Amino acid sequence: MIQHYKLIVQYKGTRYLGWQVQPESAGLTVQGEVNKALAVVSKSGEVKTLGSGRTDAGVHALGQVVKASIPLTIDPGSLVKALNGNLPDDIRVIHAENSDEVFFPTVHAISKEYHYRFTAHRSFSAFQNDLIANCPFELNLEQMREACKVFIGRHDFTNFYCEGTEVASNIREIYECEILEVSQGDWGMLPPHYVFRVVGNGFLKQMVRLLVGATWNIGRGKTTLDQLKGALGPTKVHRLGPVAPPEGLYLVRVNY
Amino acid sequence: MIQHYKLIVQYKGTRYLGWQVQPESAGLTVQGEVNKALAVVSKSGEVKTLGSGRTDAGVHALGQVVKASIPLTIDPGSLVKALNGNLPDDIRVIHAENSDEVFFPTVHAISKEYHYRFTAHRSFSAFQNDLIANCPFELNLEQMREACKVFIGRHDFTNFYCEGTEVASNIREIYECEILEVSQGDWGMLPPHYVFRVVGNGFLKQMVRLLVGATWNIGRGKTTLDQLKGALGPTKVHRLGPVAPPEGLYLVRVNY
Repeated sequence: MIQHYKLIVQYKGTRYLGWQVQPESAGLTVQGEVNKALAVVSKSGEVKTLGSGRTDAGVHALGQVVKASIPLTIDPGSLVKALNGNLPDDIRVIHAENSDEVFFPTVHAISKEYHYRFTAHRSFSAFQNDLIANCPFELNLEQMREACKVFIGRHDFTNFYCEGTEVASNIREIYECEILEVSQGDWGMLPPHYVFRVVGNGFLKQMVRLLVGATWNIGRGKTTLDQLKGALGPTKVHRLGPVAPPEGLYLVRVNY
Repeated sequence: MIQHYKLIVQYKGTRYLGWQVQPESAGLTVQGEVNKALAVVSKSGEVKTLGSGRTDAGVHALGQVVKASIPLTIDPGSLVKALNGNLPDDIRVIHAENSDEVFFPTVHAISKEYHYRFTAHRSFSAFQNDLIANCPFELNLEQMREACKVFIGRHDFTNFYCEGTEVASNIREIYECEILEVSQGDWGMLPPHYVFRVVGNGFLKQMVRLLVGATWNIGRGKTTLDQLKGALGPTKVHRLGPVAPPEGLYLVRVNY
């Protein structure tokens, strides 16, 4: 009988084409690796997984939520151990619990939290590649924090997504948006850096990376806060910034 | 005319065979990459570098010291920028200053500081691979801290090195040795971990990794402190622990 489990999965996205499974020949995906581990553990080809959402190539997750359906009844703690024994080091299942058939990680998500990590120096550290992006310019943090406030609320994010996936509406609500300063302390090897933290009821394709790119341009003085406010509507405007690179982005938490 | 510079070089060792240059066909080395960048910047094949010591494959450096001799007179700040523009992202020159012909990074070093980072959980984080080793056992930290105290002082480290390089003596002095607990704070993505910190007047081949391996065995109760004390002499004894894996090791500082 098929059993359903809710898994919390952590992954370093560097080596992967993203969450979503692809034809084998395209390359490695996180979902593909999770499916393989589930097949080994359940000794079955009848494995089905659903993630809370896609993450792009190179994007990381601290808490991706996955529904796994397998023909195996197992204690969730043992499932965690068995899966981690069959997964590559850069994918870890950190929690499992019993779930039911009607749980859908995508549609039932109330909100999601993303972090975008970046340094803002002309030079960067040898250890931040893959983990923290670099915006090699002087940035005005105060202006960027004003930009974060502009994003909060219910807006049409037509100007902050990349087409490709069909969606019913471009309206999303941002609950929290801020920039934190992170020091790794005296004994860390990672450089001090910034975290663009955003919590919302949903995000369009590449939306977080476009919000970060627009915020960088605000910080550089290339875009004004008025231009930013003007872009939060259904009318297409000239793009306000780059798509910030994937290595800085972390799907941190999905709330149900 | 050949000019001499003292460089401080940071690198993530994951992709490299180590510091020391090897025949091109063997693979990438940090010194090889630094030499290539120096050749481009000085527009010359007449490039010579000397590191403070070798680091093995996969071992990192926060502050390797390198003497670079090139037929180019350039302001040290400009040299840093030019080199970083020609180096891969996982090698960074963080400082340069003028040096002289008689400076030898190896023999003039008064002391070196190494850190060895590790977690001690059955499970580990998806982000620590390449950067923090995992010792998947319950460890008795108190006993391990006693082991650190045993190492301090002037000892014959015959039982704590791998043969391969000719050395005049196996006697070295350890000035400081301790285990620190590192939290990455609320906003870090790396897991809380331990740092085995050691400062000494010199280290034999793989010595730090063997000290760490022996300390792990003390923490697991597989080796006693008396056995450890007994091994600090010129008489060969049965090996006291594994060579801890390279990814946890960082050459932090070389003092002159």
